[in-house]
Amino acid sequence: MGEKRVYLDYNATTPLRPEVREAIIEDLAVFGNASSMHGAGRLAHNRVEEAREAVEALIGAQAGTITFTSGGSESNNTVFETMRVLGSGPDGRVLESGRTGIITTAIEHPCVLNSAAYLKSLGFPVHFLRVDEYGRIAMDELKSVLSEKTLLVSVMTANNETGTIQDIKEIAALAKAQGAFVHSDGVQSTGKIPVNVEDLGVDYFTVSAHKIYGPKGIGGLYIRKKAPVFPLIHGGHQEDGRRAGTYNNTGILGFGKAAELALRDLTAYKDHVEPLRDRLREGFLKTIPNIKINGHLAYTVPNTLNVSFPGAEGESILLSLDMKGIEVSTGSACASGSLEPSHVLLAMGVGPELAHGSIRFSLGWENTAGDIDYTIEAAAPIIARLRAMSSVSVEQERSHA
Amino acid sequence: MGEKRVYLDYNATTPLRPEVREAIIEDLAVFGNASSMHGAGRLAHNRVEEAREAVEALIGAQAGTITFTSGGSESNNTVFETMRVLGSGPDGRVLESGRTGIITTAIEHPCVLNSAAYLKSLGFPVHFLRVDEYGRIAMDELKSVLSEKTLLVSVMTANNETGTIQDIKEIAALAKAQGAFVHSDGVQSTGKIPVNVEDLGVDYFTVSAHKIYGPKGIGGLYIRKKAPVFPLIHGGHQEDGRRAGTYNNTGILGFGKAAELALRDLTAYKDHVEPLRDRLREGFLKTIPNIKINGHLAYTVPNTLNVSFPGAEGESILLSLDMKGIEVSTGSACASGSLEPSHVLLAMGVGPELAHGSIRFSLGWENTAGDIDYTIEAAAPIIARLRAMSSVSVEQERSHA
Repeated sequence: MGEKRVYLDYNATTPLRPEVREAIIEDLAVFGNASSMHGAGRLAHNRVEEAREAVEALIGAQAGTITFTSGGSESNNTVFETMRVLGSGPDGRVLESGRTGIITTAIEHPCVLNSAAYLKSLGFPVHFLRVDEYGRIAMDELKSVLSEKTLLVSVMTANNETGTIQDIKEIAALAKAQGAFVHSDGVQSTGKIPVNVEDLGVDYFTVSAHKIYGPKGIGGLYIRKKAPVFPLIHGGHQEDGRRAGTYNNTGILGFGKAAELALRDLTAYKDHVEPLRDRLREGFLKTIPNIKINGHLAYTVPNTLNVSFPGAEGESILLSLDMKGIEVSTGSACASGSLEPSHVLLAMGVGPELAHGSIRFSLGWENTAGDIDYTIEAAAPIIARLRAMSSVSVEQERSHA
Repeated sequence: MGEKRVYLDYNATTPLRPEVREAIIEDLAVFGNASSMHGAGRLAHNRVEEAREAVEALIGAQAGTITFTSGGSESNNTVFETMRVLGSGPDGRVLESGRTGIITTAIEHPCVLNSAAYLKSLGFPVHFLRVDEYGRIAMDELKSVLSEKTLLVSVMTANNETGTIQDIKEIAALAKAQGAFVHSDGVQSTGKIPVNVEDLGVDYFTVSAHKIYGPKGIGGLYIRKKAPVFPLIHGGHQEDGRRAGTYNNTGILGFGKAAELALRDLTAYKDHVEPLRDRLREGFLKTIPNIKINGHLAYTVPNTLNVSFPGAEGESILLSLDMKGIEVSTGSACASGSLEPSHVLLAMGVGPELAHGSIRFSLGWENTAGDIDYTIEAAAPIIARLRAMSSVSVEQERSHA
């Protein structure tokens, strides 16, 4: 394994920013249950509230609208659990004559897809919106399936695999016109592009700390004032009864610090990662023949590049790059271990074989122009070698046939 | 506020042990998504598995039986969500002719009580077992309500407010004889008394890191091999599909270290806190007239003392002790903010007024004999003063009547 390490998997998770790490280390010496009444408890409580304000500021939310959770998956699940309760009778059975329609997209994160599939299994009518070749939904399709029976429209702000951004403001306006609730999974957009939940007009918005250089195991759910919410985790009175469980003080504090820095550095972040991402794309296009860039050139977060390398297998590319110290992903980390091609790329019309040969490069603060050039130089011979092996094995298969 | 601080609220939460803090600080420099395939991901994955083994060792569990969660509340909720799914038809409606009976106790943590109440609202028959004056359930009552319709028996191993321990092994044997699943909330027993889930014979067992000198926001659920489980958080393939969400590596690592130390020091812990707890009890009995010790003298964890001070109000005692730097609790931290008397003490037959005047002292590693003597000296005049004020106000009320 080479000595140089180039981490290009920031959409999976990020390292802590030094200021976040320092704040966490300082906080580890403090302890106390934020629900307790004594001195240690009050100190813990104050730190939780400061962090809440920082997260709210990052997404332009009113005070008291962020509920802390254990992460993006829990936040998204809380929205779907709320819809399950809203759409069910007192006996838990889906209301046949009620507002029960769920509209989401084919390219959501597995936690939204699986939550929607669960509601479907209970009898909720669920519609998965298609996307075009750039990964964007069509407003015409949304309009055609929206009705006064629609309970929820859930569309992610930016996709984790391609970086493609949806027009959440227009989606929300269409949904609200029919009286539906609107949720957006903002995990991959927060801290990468400006987000204002008031302006977007959503009822629920999901954020996560570890995608913005904060700690893992902590996330948040924006819940518009007066929007309904039913707890996924029943228990104590924490978070006004919206989420039970002892406060993860240190995680919350780290999230707050990361949010504060993300807001302060939003422009600097774009100015840092976007030219590097474009340099990587141009470098690949120049040095590796016959590749396909997946995603949208304009409606995209600034750090993400998804590339198909026809004739090479994604997992082989990943492992070969890893041998050179370059860390990338074949899709969302949650789906790794599975050998299915990316559901996002398939939904964009990329064929299964091409989808199998696709790599996500996602950039971050620590990357340099040198990292990018090293990656381009390393990738070209790897792709050439894998393509050559692949054509040999195709030949062998033919000779066996 | 005095300079001396005496923390006696370890059942609410614990500080990190120095070794745990060091391990966390070292791990904060490492990053990577434990589901990712590249180098950083594999390193994160290995650390997760090492921690899992340490937690399993602490409770005598087989390899691969611990699922990491965001804490005790989520673990307990996962068991009840599993029962909701098992007891419901494909349309979400409770099976009328199925095995749907839930048996729990009146003294469980709010997250179990509220989860049980939620199932009751859906139509599940739920029975809350009574407890005697020492906080123990009666096997006769359990036998009388157990039947072939019982789906789950959920009884906590040790109570958070009084420390009283239940005979989980006998409870489990009775429940299994009827084919019911058995769950025990072990949050307050783990690391305080020896626990062996195989010997207890339970199907599910809940553990939490921040009660055993580990970090907050991380817990675990023991799930016996082949016992059913339905995810509370739908999403990625993490934890074999039992719990979605990016691994909280650092939290998991801290939990593992805390579990390792708790197992190593189980005897030393008892030898440290038990004499101090007994010293506190004897000191109170000697210096403060007319008090009542709540809980069991033999079936108890070694660190917990619950005392009723008739004629003094619990919140006033708490705040007065806090002025002296002594941090205690009136009951579970989750219920603070509410002015209702402890449901645990009420269930034990303590009257509402007496329950209102009760304080939980829970000890830990950092406490010294000096802390205990300081607390006894501080408490006596506080109780005397509050009792005097209380009798004055009783007099005033009488003169107004």
